Amino acid sequence: MSKVYVTGHKSPDTDSIAAAISYSYLKRQLGMDAVAARAGEPNKETKFALDYFKVEAPVLLTSVARKSESDEKTKIILVDHNESKQCVDGIKDADVLELIDHHRLGDFETESPIFILIRPVGCVNTVIYGLYKQNGVKPSKEVAGMMLSAIISDTVLFRSPTCTEEDKKAVKELAEIAGVDYEKYGMDMLKAGADISDYPAEKLAHNDTKEFEAGGKTFSCGQISVMDVEPINAKKADIMKALEDTKAEKKYEASYLMVTNILTEDTYLWFTEGAKDAAEKAFGKKAENGMIYLPKVMSRKKQVAPFLLKVYGE
Amino acid sequence: MSKVYVTGHKSPDTDSIAAAISYSYLKRQLGMDAVAARAGEPNKETKFALDYFKVEAPVLLTSVARKSESDEKTKIILVDHNESKQCVDGIKDADVLELIDHHRLGDFETESPIFILIRPVGCVNTVIYGLYKQNGVKPSKEVAGMMLSAIISDTVLFRSPTCTEEDKKAVKELAEIAGVDYEKYGMDMLKAGADISDYPAEKLAHNDTKEFEAGGKTFSCGQISVMDVEPINAKKADIMKALEDTKAEKKYEASYLMVTNILTEDTYLWFTEGAKDAAEKAFGKKAENGMIYLPKVMSRKKQVAPFLLKVYGE
Repeated sequence: MSKVYVTGHKSPDTDSIAAAISYSYLKRQLGMDAVAARAGEPNKETKFALDYFKVEAPVLLTSVARKSESDEKTKIILVDHNESKQCVDGIKDADVLELIDHHRLGDFETESPIFILIRPVGCVNTVIYGLYKQNGVKPSKEVAGMMLSAIISDTVLFRSPTCTEEDKKAVKELAEIAGVDYEKYGMDMLKAGADISDYPAEKLAHNDTKEFEAGGKTFSCGQISVMDVEPINAKKADIMKALEDTKAEKKYEASYLMVTNILTEDTYLWFTEGAKDAAEKAFGKKAENGMIYLPKVMSRKKQVAPFLLKVYGE
Repeated sequence: MSKVYVTGHKSPDTDSIAAAISYSYLKRQLGMDAVAARAGEPNKETKFALDYFKVEAPVLLTSVARKSESDEKTKIILVDHNESKQCVDGIKDADVLELIDHHRLGDFETESPIFILIRPVGCVNTVIYGLYKQNGVKPSKEVAGMMLSAIISDTVLFRSPTCTEEDKKAVKELAEIAGVDYEKYGMDMLKAGADISDYPAEKLAHNDTKEFEAGGKTFSCGQISVMDVEPINAKKADIMKALEDTKAEKKYEASYLMVTNILTEDTYLWFTEGAKDAAEKAFGKKAENGMIYLPKVMSRKKQVAPFLLKVYGE
């Protein structure tokens, strides 16, 4: 059997990169020629984790499009995403063998039955860890380190409402294997990810951005985690300009950016011009200073995307 | 928590009925107030199994539509299907909690993450049996009997190309629990299902019919298992008339009927007027006497639907 690429979503976060690493490792133990891949550059937080555990970044795979119909299809396994807008380019040309996720099921369809496992837990690495257990496989120290980094990232060290008891248990067990103090390591990793001091506005505007489609309309929603909103607020004008430019270029209905403070556990939702009504309707509250304040909101998946999808889907 | 209905697809087959019974039983053991439901009448084969193992048919649930937006949503778990065309009426009004299946992923979407498990095995009861094992739960004698009936039905006693080693292993283990000779019982059950002698043409035309959508076009494909094609061929004119009537009434692009001989392990694919080109294109062979002969074809899911979907999706 030819190589199978395991890949997460575009604008990969720590979970997508770690899942490509951990699931390809598991599949190799089970006899598949699986290769970890990534659909974009690792962010600062992910780089911190890769450096800490001395793990190589997955290979870059930005397109699986074929040049002609007679070309062989690239075999891939999707982890941490399933909506076509978030997939590597050319996904329609690929042969998707499996899907492992923890997000809502979007517009993903298959021609034949394949293995699909989606579980409502905080992190896809928790789902993958369950598959390690089912198959009686133990991750290596390095892989365990990447897996716990992903769970800490996605659950913001257990603070996110998406975090389940199973996520916590997985981190504790993986920390034993990796030999780290997960609380100390976790805060250091989150801090590294929240350091936006040297990020240009262009980069902040598109951080961890995902596209969504509802009612034939496409919108984007990025998210950036900070430990203080002042530095990013100081750059708001430039960030919004970059966001408006991309919205126009990609013909989005609207673009959103969640500025999430992981210490105070709340989010300011920024939005492009014209999206005020939709945003206010989605969250049932008024915008102030061009943003909507959402206390206790940290999860795009659980607390933001469903409400925007509902409004655009109407 | 209020009642949760576990239901299979419209025009239920033995797998859909048995999965509603077996998965609701498992969920009850795990503390959920789960009720087995069905989206239509059990067929002859299923009735044979229910009678043999003295199991009551699931409750009839033909619609989950709400009368007003303020009505509570019906909580359901989908087993053995995921395409909206095959779901109980009013599915958009329901709160779908889980999906357990063994078919291709169709147009099913969720607003939030839910537990979804799809595995490419011959029968959804094999998937469910895996979940029994994972949860350390043993089915009752009666439930085990229904589960093995479903696997025998879907794999035509291991003859279908969809049958995996895991399906066979599950039947053998379940037969121990149920205390039956699965080969003898299986042939008796298949024989009961293949007895179409007292079926009117109208019923034969719509046996185990599923709707599919591709490229904005909807077509239907039914399947009927026989042990001799002569009796059904003798009724072909009347059956085709019923098929044409339904096609017109439901505005289908086309209607197909698989007449599958489970002894000779082949299928004659019947089709409505105007579908000849699509059918010939899908299977790369010429129709004769208004049908396409498909040797070694027994599985709609694996050997028929993907090829028709491809042609209509172009």
